Amino acid sequence: MRRINWPLRQHDQPEFLLSLIVQKYGGSSLADAESIKRVARRIVETRRAGNEVCVVVSAMGDTTDELLDLAEEVSPLPPGREMDMLLTAGERISMALVAMAIANLGHQARSFTGSQAGVITDSSHGKARIIDVTPGRIRDALAEGHVAIVAGFQGVSQDSKDITTLGRGGSDTTAVALAAALEADVCEIYTDVDGVFTADPRIVPAARKIDRLSNEEMLEMAASGAKILHLRCVEYARRFGMPIHVRSSFSYREGTWIIDPEEGVSVEAPIIAGVAHDRSEAKITVVGVPDHPGKAAEIFQACAKAGVNIDMIVQNVSAVETGLTDISFTLPKTDGQHGVQALKAVQESVGFASLQYDDHIGKLSLVGAGMRSHPGVSATFFQALADAGVNIEMISTSEIRISVVTRDDQLDDAVRAVHTAFGLDSAEGEAVVYGGTGR
Amino acid sequence: MRRINWPLRQHDQPEFLLSLIVQKYGGSSLADAESIKRVARRIVETRRAGNEVCVVVSAMGDTTDELLDLAEEVSPLPPGREMDMLLTAGERISMALVAMAIANLGHQARSFTGSQAGVITDSSHGKARIIDVTPGRIRDALAEGHVAIVAGFQGVSQDSKDITTLGRGGSDTTAVALAAALEADVCEIYTDVDGVFTADPRIVPAARKIDRLSNEEMLEMAASGAKILHLRCVEYARRFGMPIHVRSSFSYREGTWIIDPEEGVSVEAPIIAGVAHDRSEAKITVVGVPDHPGKAAEIFQACAKAGVNIDMIVQNVSAVETGLTDISFTLPKTDGQHGVQALKAVQESVGFASLQYDDHIGKLSLVGAGMRSHPGVSATFFQALADAGVNIEMISTSEIRISVVTRDDQLDDAVRAVHTAFGLDSAEGEAVVYGGTGR
Repeated sequence: MRRINWPLRQHDQPEFLLSLIVQKYGGSSLADAESIKRVARRIVETRRAGNEVCVVVSAMGDTTDELLDLAEEVSPLPPGREMDMLLTAGERISMALVAMAIANLGHQARSFTGSQAGVITDSSHGKARIIDVTPGRIRDALAEGHVAIVAGFQGVSQDSKDITTLGRGGSDTTAVALAAALEADVCEIYTDVDGVFTADPRIVPAARKIDRLSNEEMLEMAASGAKILHLRCVEYARRFGMPIHVRSSFSYREGTWIIDPEEGVSVEAPIIAGVAHDRSEAKITVVGVPDHPGKAAEIFQACAKAGVNIDMIVQNVSAVETGLTDISFTLPKTDGQHGVQALKAVQESVGFASLQYDDHIGKLSLVGAGMRSHPGVSATFFQALADAGVNIEMISTSEIRISVVTRDDQLDDAVRAVHTAFGLDSAEGEAVVYGGTGR
Repeated sequence: MRRINWPLRQHDQPEFLLSLIVQKYGGSSLADAESIKRVARRIVETRRAGNEVCVVVSAMGDTTDELLDLAEEVSPLPPGREMDMLLTAGERISMALVAMAIANLGHQARSFTGSQAGVITDSSHGKARIIDVTPGRIRDALAEGHVAIVAGFQGVSQDSKDITTLGRGGSDTTAVALAAALEADVCEIYTDVDGVFTADPRIVPAARKIDRLSNEEMLEMAASGAKILHLRCVEYARRFGMPIHVRSSFSYREGTWIIDPEEGVSVEAPIIAGVAHDRSEAKITVVGVPDHPGKAAEIFQACAKAGVNIDMIVQNVSAVETGLTDISFTLPKTDGQHGVQALKAVQESVGFASLQYDDHIGKLSLVGAGMRSHPGVSATFFQALADAGVNIEMISTSEIRISVVTRDDQLDDAVRAVHTAFGLDSAEGEAVVYGGTGR
């Protein structure tokens, strides 16, 4: 990795080798004309410090929601191709405005759509996957000393040449993918908080900013409900070894670095990275399933066919006298109705007795790579929950994560108890506002 | 020309050969979700009647103005390339929504940006000229039975591959250019009035819709202030022999056909097509110009360098005793300040005495191909103005047009007087609302 030049705000003389930085600004950093001008100043500072800068932008503030409303007024079930064509107008607007604001500061900037930037995807409208990134025009713009502004969230289908979108969190993925293709030194994800925290500061005022996370830990945090970075973006960064720096566009503080320790280098990482929580899931319990081989498979195949994503699964021990068992699983609340319908359709063939649907659950996850070598973690974890009077309904674990499902009204207490039990509380609460990163 | 199938609203069986129709809908026809659904129904009717349909759309209602406001907030002088990137988001939104609305009616539609539709232009951002149209993807979509929806007003630069816009009235030009490239049977320009009128019905309530105009007449009308079609669009139609049908998206009445009479066919065209007026010009008088050869050239070269478009020019007879003359010319009000500044800069070298700027003028033009062979037209024209007490300040003529400049507060009287004098008044006024066609 080349040395990165941080903005030298006093004397604008680059002192180091030229670095290439990819910056991503989310919708909350681009809410209005004033925000766009502020972001432009920040980009120009990075450029003046002697770096090459490629910027990925989301749509401004509420643009995407406004476009979705318009689509809904016109058609209840719009074709994916046209929905993508519509939504990509949002980034087109913000990227042109950011480029204008940079030009107004006397620097040269050129904006590029996802297609122009060479973001090649498959044809799955609304949730396309990036197949390849061929950023020839970006390289040319950078070589000519321009700042390149790229529309996040969008690409062009390899087969049909149609415009595609990458789905929720897509702009983060665009940034990391571009950074990898350009062999950038770092991918900076700008948001409205100072970085990744040990817990949601709205729930745990004593939560601390995490200085450094491994990709593995960030993946588990993202999968467990930490909204600051999208899962796919972290997966991409891990695959290409691209360091991510999550930081605030409202301050110059160091944020959270997501970077794997170099091989052979011993890192004294803390045992626990943080506590994530998630209120977006519901629980379905399939009651009275015949305890025969293949019945669980039938149930989950029905869900898969309906496009329902399953998270945690628990199967009770079968009651010997009845030969029946219960299977519970969690799924996104937004998939709830689909899931219930899909299961009702197979009730007769599977032969289960009834369905229970519960959308008052919460999920808490404790994440940390250090857990691997510290066998006492589980004990401390469950003791903390017990002391706080939290009832546990489901448990699931990975090598570096423990997750539990609780009643939703006990979730905040649970998060605070676990956060304190693992010594994550800071001496004094940091004043931060926690929010999403847009798309 | 193949036979065109008009919508058969009773029984949806195509009876004729397949025709290819290009339709263009302006911003006033696409003001909101309801309007978009109405336009979609109209498109589907044309398709059901057995025609292939390619639709060109402008941005919805006020979208362009809103985007311009945003740009102004960010930068007082935005780069043309980024301005074009910004503004083209408008058509992207409307075309995707129209395609969705058509899909919602059970028909297949695919939207295409100017670039995807093969609209190749030069690199003059904000006022690009179309160099070529290569609508391969449109042809494919039509061949597959889809309605093709194309973003008007935009293209892609041949050299830089950057997105360009065609300037005011650009969507009309896109429609005619596409129609020509696709060898369509007709290019229908939908607007909020029934067609081209013999005068602006807001001024002359007895104005009549014109059934048929030659390209030459429409060119003179457009150049003289009739806002219904842009000059460049009519020029394009003439060059490629593409019939234009200007009609209302709010009714099924026949509108105005703009089509040249076939050679050898005698058309009993009326002498006069209509009366156009224009309030958008101002007058500059350069007082006390030395009456030497080359002085007028110096004046107009100064204007040309400043990018100021000159319309009518009048030079007074030189006063023999002083050897000085006055030169008056008209120019768009929007160029007024530039024009005055450009002339002040050359005042010393040209040696004129002073400048007068007058933005209270109006221009009236009488247009008609029949004028050529009817020598009495001028006499009737000036008599009508004299009878109405209208003072004439400047006169200019072409083979098929007479234009005069009057005080702006006399313009309405002048238009009514001339309209009546040439027998253009209908028996009863038609109830119409006259408006622009968007861009």
